[in-house]
Amino acid sequence: MFASRPVVHPMEVEAAAADAPAQQPPPPWVLMKDVPGMPGTPGGLAFRVSQLLFAAMSLAIMSSTVDFASVTAFWYLVAGAILQCLWSLFLAIVDVYAILVKRCLRNRRAVALFAIGDGITWAVTFSGSCSSAAITVLINSDLGICSQNNCGSFMMSTAMGFMCWLALSPSFILNLRSLSTRA
Amino acid sequence: MFASRPVVHPMEVEAAAADAPAQQPPPPWVLMKDVPGMPGTPGGLAFRVSQLLFAAMSLAIMSSTVDFASVTAFWYLVAGAILQCLWSLFLAIVDVYAILVKRCLRNRRAVALFAIGDGITWAVTFSGSCSSAAITVLINSDLGICSQNNCGSFMMSTAMGFMCWLALSPSFILNLRSLSTRA
Repeated sequence: MFASRPVVHPMEVEAAAADAPAQQPPPPWVLMKDVPGMPGTPGGLAFRVSQLLFAAMSLAIMSSTVDFASVTAFWYLVAGAILQCLWSLFLAIVDVYAILVKRCLRNRRAVALFAIGDGITWAVTFSGSCSSAAITVLINSDLGICSQNNCGSFMMSTAMGFMCWLALSPSFILNLRSLSTRA
Repeated sequence: MFASRPVVHPMEVEAAAADAPAQQPPPPWVLMKDVPGMPGTPGGLAFRVSQLLFAAMSLAIMSSTVDFASVTAFWYLVAGAILQCLWSLFLAIVDVYAILVKRCLRNRRAVALFAIGDGITWAVTFSGSCSSAAITVLINSDLGICSQNNCGSFMMSTAMGFMCWLALSPSFILNLRSLSTRA
């Protein structure tokens, strides 16, 4: 019986040591990564929901016009808005899951996936909004044929596209920053 | 006399310790920042010269058409190309100076200035190229009125704008990376 004591005691000591860091305050680098707006935080979820709303509004307003289908740039904006809706909806669901089960999403592969996806949708939304803005300005200012077109709807849809891009920027920058500081 | 010895000796030891790191090989984080393409390196100069060439070609081709002035998006591309030419020329001169006098440009303020300037010209060049591409596609594919317009020149100028944006991206990303790892 006495021979087993040295074996039992170190195990108890090791188990206590392994549990100890969970009760101590986290080290400084963990605090630095806890930026509001990161994936898995309520701020991150708020950014995703706002992206989803702006992209859905841009899509709905542009689709409500009859003559958007005749211009490739408007098609591109609609395609970008659909992509943005799907991506933001997926990440919003992931964020809700992470908040509900209190799970940290900051492992390297997940952040890299989020950063790549955000980068692609960021570029598509921005280029779509710029293209749409160029056509809207052409119709409105250069040709002056607004009376024959739904200029108001085109402008509103373009503005929502830019708002969506602005709401996407913090998520993208925070993911990139998290990736570069961890690399 | 003996009373001064303990004061003199620690000072000699301290001076030797302060000089020692200069003769040792540099620590790993200094090596990491010596990425080809950073400001003040031959790679960085090559990127700047290629940006300058592409922006100048885009500007020259677009300016050679007569009817570019009637479309706001083409004006925007021309303005962006002029801005890009000036910025890249300025930074190419700075790079040549840094290479000739073998001076390191990697202090925090200089890198922040380069990153902000690169970010602004990056966004302007990309949005200008997207806008110009949207108008070119509208003229070429949607309306089919290429016979009345210089479609070839518009396309070429837009392509040069995108090439300039691609050549700018490595400089911008390296500056941002240098800024974020030093922050």
